[in-house]
Amino acid sequence: MERHFVQELEELKERLLWMGSLAERAVHRSVQSLLGSDAALAQQVVEEESAINQMQIEIDDRVLQLLALQQLMATDLRFVLAVSRINADLERIGDQAVNIAQSALRVVQHPRVRPYIDLPRMSQAAEQMVRDSLNALVNKDTELARSVMLRDDHVDHLRDQVFRELLTYMMENSSVVFPAFELILVAKNLERIADHATNIAEDVIYMVAGRDVRHHALARR
Amino acid sequence: MERHFVQELEELKERLLWMGSLAERAVHRSVQSLLGSDAALAQQVVEEESAINQMQIEIDDRVLQLLALQQLMATDLRFVLAVSRINADLERIGDQAVNIAQSALRVVQHPRVRPYIDLPRMSQAAEQMVRDSLNALVNKDTELARSVMLRDDHVDHLRDQVFRELLTYMMENSSVVFPAFELILVAKNLERIADHATNIAEDVIYMVAGRDVRHHALARR
Repeated sequence: MERHFVQELEELKERLLWMGSLAERAVHRSVQSLLGSDAALAQQVVEEESAINQMQIEIDDRVLQLLALQQLMATDLRFVLAVSRINADLERIGDQAVNIAQSALRVVQHPRVRPYIDLPRMSQAAEQMVRDSLNALVNKDTELARSVMLRDDHVDHLRDQVFRELLTYMMENSSVVFPAFELILVAKNLERIADHATNIAEDVIYMVAGRDVRHHALARR
Repeated sequence: MERHFVQELEELKERLLWMGSLAERAVHRSVQSLLGSDAALAQQVVEEESAINQMQIEIDDRVLQLLALQQLMATDLRFVLAVSRINADLERIGDQAVNIAQSALRVVQHPRVRPYIDLPRMSQAAEQMVRDSLNALVNKDTELARSVMLRDDHVDHLRDQVFRELLTYMMENSSVVFPAFELILVAKNLERIADHATNIAEDVIYMVAGRDVRHHALARR
């Protein structure tokens, strides 16, 4: 019985990591499809969303069953609640990847506006945050989780830079307003992906250290 | 013991509704501050965010304690898990209201670009979705919850209209690019508020009917 339960927790973690790798891959490929003007790849990202959605429901079912059948210790309870929240964040990262892929599909219909100077840097930073938040989860590494949280400001800074660059470009040349606007939407999507990675990092700390670091709750305690 | 537990569930619900009313008020006032060019009101919305954040942590603590101390029946378990998810959505609605208030603070520094034709309609629709999702929660009204879910498309449609309008305006007159862009960001924020209301409505159905209606899971079953 005890062993069965340990195994269920381990399986839950493995499924969540699998979900994480799907979300991570979707983000990477959506950005690749945009930068490489690859409509076929963008289409694949859109089509693979349903696998992520299905996985989310499966993981939530496992969470519910674990909570219903087991009287969990505080540590395991925090783990299961963290999984439930991280699951939601991963699904929303998948949604953002689909939005980027859909922007890519619209952007390829316009002449290429300019080399996307800061967008690739921004996407690299956001992708690395997602990867590291999942690594922090696997290794219960609160230091890595903290470094993810700190990097959120950097991504916001890059986003402002991308906005300024594209708006200036739009002012100079009104014919690029529509394609440039798509890139602004992509920057917003990447910002949200970084936000979700930050949420995951906060949940890792909550899970490992039993402390709530959202809203700098730590500072208040 | 039994009675104590029923009371704790009731308190949890009351705190969540209080949190909901704070989030709802923040959205309403942030939009008012934008439409009325009221910097003082916008500033208030920014300052009152911490109350919402603190409430989120309090509610999550209550959820954890309930799960730790009680072996819950399936219905109560679904309720507690739904509260935990709705709590996160309400906090993010509060975040979006703060973003709108911050846009309002920047917009007042520019000459008014034009009457905001579709933005008030969009904000009314989004606010009504938040209100109705909470009413659905109070009254366990799955019909109302479903109507909230259906209205999400309408808000997306209004958002596209606002985008088109503002982009056309930017193309015609490059001097309005920056203030018009702020209004685009506000439309994005309202879109997200409507998304969160939709999430809440889905959780209400999950809670009441025990069915997962995310990603049209219902259709697949």
